[in-house]
Amino acid sequence: MKVLGESQNSEQHLAQGILFVISGPSGVGKTSIIRSVLERIEHVVFSVSCTTRKQRPGEIDGIDYYFVSHEQFEKMIQENKFIEWARVHDNYYGTPADMVYENIRKGFDVILDIDVQGALTVKNNFSGAKFIFIAPPSYEILRERLKKRGTESEEKIQRRLETAKKELTFIPEFEYLIINEDLEESIRNLSSIIFAERLRYERIKDIAKVRKLMEEVR
Amino acid sequence: MKVLGESQNSEQHLAQGILFVISGPSGVGKTSIIRSVLERIEHVVFSVSCTTRKQRPGEIDGIDYYFVSHEQFEKMIQENKFIEWARVHDNYYGTPADMVYENIRKGFDVILDIDVQGALTVKNNFSGAKFIFIAPPSYEILRERLKKRGTESEEKIQRRLETAKKELTFIPEFEYLIINEDLEESIRNLSSIIFAERLRYERIKDIAKVRKLMEEVR
Repeated sequence: MKVLGESQNSEQHLAQGILFVISGPSGVGKTSIIRSVLERIEHVVFSVSCTTRKQRPGEIDGIDYYFVSHEQFEKMIQENKFIEWARVHDNYYGTPADMVYENIRKGFDVILDIDVQGALTVKNNFSGAKFIFIAPPSYEILRERLKKRGTESEEKIQRRLETAKKELTFIPEFEYLIINEDLEESIRNLSSIIFAERLRYERIKDIAKVRKLMEEVR
Repeated sequence: MKVLGESQNSEQHLAQGILFVISGPSGVGKTSIIRSVLERIEHVVFSVSCTTRKQRPGEIDGIDYYFVSHEQFEKMIQENKFIEWARVHDNYYGTPADMVYENIRKGFDVILDIDVQGALTVKNNFSGAKFIFIAPPSYEILRERLKKRGTESEEKIQRRLETAKKELTFIPEFEYLIINEDLEESIRNLSSIIFAERLRYERIKDIAKVRKLMEEVR
């Protein structure tokens, strides 16, 4: 098992960053919560995924996804460049490792928004990451939310709901559960998890400030 | 070992409350931080200690302490009414168990502000409590803060500093470390720990809302 943050921050003025892995069904409001947290909290960055699917109008390369070719993606798989990847229908999706490690080494926390299967892969392969599930208040409410959007066919909504159902059964695999009833409350909750995890003694014991304090009282 | 919250909240609409044990040297700013958190966060209560020391002007019985006689205190010890107690010089100090259990059962979080020895006693006797240390940015700064107060003799300040030194060596026994550099930041940090701990799946899996969600997707 790879231990995140093994390569130490050279001067240890800052603690290593933390990897926050966030999952939750489509339509639950994940993106809005994460976006606000990224705007409000310093030293948190978002891990942009790679995909081979076509860029849609309005999507920006490097912001929404890194859009790569099938050949590039398969080369990256062979070179072990992904923390996790998956093939969904005809397209690949994956989390590039470099950016995650680089930021964590520099003391930035990294937010990963991936599906449950991807989260479980990360959980099995890395220690030290934190797993957060964002759930709707109820399955009924998720159904209503997806219908209200009005942008998708009944068939597509059904497929999303089936996927959501499967995903929700994996909640017990996650350490934290945020039930998104109120956007502001959920933003506060995700922020609280980030702030609290930054205060764990085990994480900060080696930073200069704490080491100095412990030396003064020795 | 006694597991906190064994006696279940009858209807399970709410999660059990959490016991937050807070320690830190005198002069570090603990009281201001805790007071603000109690004002700002709902469903958090403060555990008032019992003491046999004399009530000082301005202190209110039942708010600052429960002031009891030596005889009453010793009877309470015999009746096992304390989570932890200590004799300091000629006086007893103790945390009454009833109020802590009652609130936790009702779903209220309880904050305990006790010395390091008391915290270690709680740690050895109860599972599920959360331990938070509030430290000064440096030992030098603590010294300056105590001197600036100007209300105490040099001798008394020296004694407080010696005690503080001993207490700070126990920081590694605590799960969370808040370094009080800025009051607002420390209030936010303590609040974040409380909110984050409330989101742990293991704590909330049995509440009605979560159980219902899991049943819907079964």
